[in-house]
Formats: sequence, C-alpha cells, structure tokens
Amino acid sequence: MIDLHAAQVAARQGEQVQQRIDTLVVAGVGLIGGSFALALKRAGRVGRVIGVGRTLANLEKALALGVADEISQDIAEAAARADMVLLACPVGQMGALMAAMAASLRPGCVVTDGGSTKSDVAALYRRHLPHHLPWCVPAHPIAGSDMSGASAAQYGLYENRRVVLTPLEETLAESSETVSELWRACGAEIHAMGAAEHDAVFASVSHLPHLLAFAYVDRVAAKDNAERCFDFAATGFRDFTRIAGSHPEMWTDISLANREALLAELADYQAGLGRLAALLENGDAAGLNQLFGEARAARTRWHQQFLRRG
Amino acid sequence: MIDLHAAQVAARQGEQVQQRIDTLVVAGVGLIGGSFALALKRAGRVGRVIGVGRTLANLEKALALGVADEISQDIAEAAARADMVLLACPVGQMGALMAAMAASLRPGCVVTDGGSTKSDVAALYRRHLPHHLPWCVPAHPIAGSDMSGASAAQYGLYENRRVVLTPLEETLAESSETVSELWRACGAEIHAMGAAEHDAVFASVSHLPHLLAFAYVDRVAAKDNAERCFDFAATGFRDFTRIAGSHPEMWTDISLANREALLAELADYQAGLGRLAALLENGDAAGLNQLFGEARAARTRWHQQFLRRG
Repeated sequence: MIDLHAAQVAARQGEQVQQRIDTLVVAGVGLIGGSFALALKRAGRVGRVIGVGRTLANLEKALALGVADEISQDIAEAAARADMVLLACPVGQMGALMAAMAASLRPGCVVTDGGSTKSDVAALYRRHLPHHLPWCVPAHPIAGSDMSGASAAQYGLYENRRVVLTPLEETLAESSETVSELWRACGAEIHAMGAAEHDAVFASVSHLPHLLAFAYVDRVAAKDNAERCFDFAATGFRDFTRIAGSHPEMWTDISLANREALLAELADYQAGLGRLAALLENGDAAGLNQLFGEARAARTRWHQQFLRRG
Repeated sequence: MIDLHAAQVAARQGEQVQQRIDTLVVAGVGLIGGSFALALKRAGRVGRVIGVGRTLANLEKALALGVADEISQDIAEAAARADMVLLACPVGQMGALMAAMAASLRPGCVVTDGGSTKSDVAALYRRHLPHHLPWCVPAHPIAGSDMSGASAAQYGLYENRRVVLTPLEETLAESSETVSELWRACGAEIHAMGAAEHDAVFASVSHLPHLLAFAYVDRVAAKDNAERCFDFAATGFRDFTRIAGSHPEMWTDISLANREALLAELADYQAGLGRLAALLENGDAAGLNQLFGEARAARTRWHQQFLRRG
C-alpha cells in the first residue's frame, strides 16, 4: 500500500518520501509500460508487477524477460490487488479498461496512464471512474512511441526524458506526488500543465508533424514515377519521414482525440504553405530567403536548447 | 591533359581508362568540391588542385588543410590552366563563373558541376559556354548539402553515394565517361537521366520536404506559445525539422530554379492535406487508419531498400 499519510506529512515539510509500490499493474506491456516497470524494479521501488494485456504471447514474453512477475488477462481481478495501475495501452482502449476495473479498484490505488492526448483521457477518467478521481493522475511520458511489445521495454528509456502530468481538479496532491516521485525514480523530469494546454502544445510539435509526414509519404507513393522517386530519396528524406513509420492505429487514436487542435494546426499550416507558394510563383527570392533564414535560425536555436537538455 | 583519344578507344572496346587529371580547378571549396578534391588526391587521380572562391579566408583554409595545392580568386586565369573544372558553388553563382571563364577555357577541358537542379544549369551552360558544350557535363552528387566551407571537406564522403549525370545533347560520350570514371574513383555510383526527369524526381524527394520543413518551423516559431511548444519538442520534431537547418540562400536558389516542378508538388501536397483534414473533420477512423497504414508500409519498404543500398 502507498503510505499517503507519510506523503502528506513529507509534502507539508517540503521533503520527498521515496515511494514504493507493493503491487503495480501495467495494462499494455510495451515500450512505455514495460520500461516503466523495468526502471522501477531496478530502483527497488516496486514489489510485484502484474502485466495485463490482450495478447497472451506478449504477456508470456514479458514474463520471460522479467518485465512482469505475473500476468493476467483479467484487468478487474488484477486491479483488485493493485496499489497502482498504469494504463500504457493505446488511448482507444483505455475507456474499456477503466470500465472493467471500476468496481474492483481499492480506494487509494493510484491510477495513471501514458496517453499522448490528455483532454480525452481526462474525460474517460470522469466517465468511467467518477468515484475514484482523487487517485487518478493523467500523464504523458515523452518517449519513443511505437508500441512494439514487451521486447521493446528497456532500462533507462526515461532517463532525461520528460513526463507531463495533467492532474484533474479532483486529483489529490499526494496522488500527483506519488506518480511524480516514481517517474523521477525512472530518471524523468516532471512538468505539470492543464490538459488543454498539453493538447495544444503537442498538436503543434508532435501530432501535426506526424500527419504531415504520413501525408507526404502517401503523396510520393501515389506518383506514377514513385519507384524512381524512392530510388533517389536519401538522408534528408529518411529523417523527414521517420515518423511516418509510426503505428497507424495509435495515430488514428491521437488524431481523433486531438481533432480540434489538429484541425486548427492544419489550417494554419495550409495558410503558411499558400504564402510560400505565392513567394515561389512571384519569384520572390528575398521573401524566400527571409522565410528560410528565419526558420533555420529558429531551428538552430531550438536544437541547441534540445542538446543542452541532455 | 585528359587523353580523350585513349578514352574513345577504351569506350569503343568497352574498357575503362583510369582517368588522371593534371590540373583540376574547384570553384567553391566546400563540402562538395573539397571532398571531391580530397578523394581524387587519395586515389592518385589528380596532379594539382586549384581552389577558386570569393572568400580568401576559406581558400587559405583549403590550402592549409591540403584540400587545394594552389588558390586563386581569378577564375579566368585558373580556368586557362585547367584540364577539368568543377563548379561546386551555389547554382546562383554558376552563370557568372561560366561567363568569366568562357574565353580562357581550352578545348577539351571538361567542365562539370555539383548543382542540385539541372534544367537551369543546362541553360547556363548553353548561354555562357555555347562553344564548349561537347565538354560540359552537368552533374548532381547526392550528398550532404550544407556549404560550410573548406573545413567541411572530408575523405570518403562519396563512398556508396550516387551521382546523377544529366548530359546535354552536345556532350561527348567521352566527356561523360571521364566525369563518371572520376566519380567512381571517389566511390560513387553513377546514374544518368534527363535534366527534366532529374528535376521532377528531386522536387518530390528532396526539394518539397525542405520547403515543408522550413514552412513548418516558421509556423511553430510564429505561435504565441512558441517557447512552450519548442520546450516540449522532442526526437520526432528533431528529425522532421533537421532539413530546416539547411542553407537559406542555397534553398532559395534551388526553389526558384525548380519552381515549376515545386509548385506542382506543393499543389498536390496541399490537396492531400485537404483530404486528410476532411477525414479528421468527419471523424473517419477507418480512412485515417488506411492512409497512415499505407504511408507506413511505403516508408518501411523504402527504408529497407535504403539500408540495402549501403
């Protein structure tokens, strides 16, 4: 059990309690959930990890790799024994899991998630776990996002990475602090913001570029001379399109979950492309040079900051 | 001097003569030109390299680094002594260089270039070197394209890279073969195609993504919450925007030189984004999933081929 009283006392005193979770349930044992389990095990912060998932073969792999100590395909049964539940499955599956475990969760069991969108996940918590909200902590670990099963789990994935918490109004400070402290034990840095702000920021710097890359590869593949084109694509193409290799179902979920913000981003980008096309049509070398130069300067500044982040 | 007669005989007999250039003039001693000079020196294929450029400091660096054996700011004088000239400057400077050396080039001196667009460069050869066309060989080495001076020159840059030749109608087979054979001595693989086809292919797989990346960074930087956005940008953003760090003047040149093909690419891409936005607006999960899935499959196939290329 989590010692919430000790956490409260420590929080009041400005100290940090080293959290230790007796029984952690990880629903979706892939890169995100599996790496969380491994990092906590290594840090000595977890007693037993129960891996829950739809695919038995993946769960058995998690067991064999030591990512999970026990596996189950029954979220209600596993949740009944949990001190913490991490939902690390695609956002599209989270509602069903919450509904299935709602009746069996013990009060005080912290429920958190790894979803890439947060307004929709907040709504899921409210709909499916209305009596459990004080212990619900929506979160988004910013780390590689392809869900490639238990074998993708790795120690150290979260070192120097960021985790964004978007607590609900009802979330207890102690619940947020428990989740924060465990992510810090994985090496991550914690940021808190509102769900709407989170979704706007990530629409801009993550979701939009994924859509742009998918759309770009789609257009090249549709060309009459696609084979010839692909044949001469090189390192610039490789890096620009890397994120078009991302998981389709996951990105369908994210796109629809963050639809309003993404449509606004798309419209703004389309307008920008329209202005760029006009510069080209007018042969406006000074205008192109200015746009490219400002973009390059912004990108260079960003990259220097990014490298300093470590 | 290049032994064109031996080359002709060898070409007729299906053999290859190892070309050796007594005096090579490299106009623009940066990554492209400097690396060509270094590779030929190492292969023992060049007697003397004369580096020509606008910036004395860069030429002196080229001399100090052994990229050039001699330096000059007078292209006409240098060209008079050349057995081969490589124009490795931005395309926007090539016309002036050609005009300046037109009167001093010896017949038989092969003139080639490293420009990223080829229809416009072909037109420059025709305009400025109308009497020298048999020895003019437009070319495009596909390699990192930032013009960062003599210190960027590196041995081995062209190993397993591609060089596209787009010979003019008037170009002698022997001239093309000389250029091909020297690029092969640098480790490159030679492909020939028409200038228009070259420009269409590269508009699609290189020039368009550069414009899309510049435009994208420009839009993020223009946001009210740009700082917050940049602060949460991570590895997907990093790779997608890498090419937005490219040289503004160079990309202004390329964009304008390949304007027609690029405008067609932009229009096609805009239409694709419009369809994607419609899928989003309609909440069409199946449609999004299909588009993302097909793009991912195409990108995965491409990447496997790219890795096999070595």
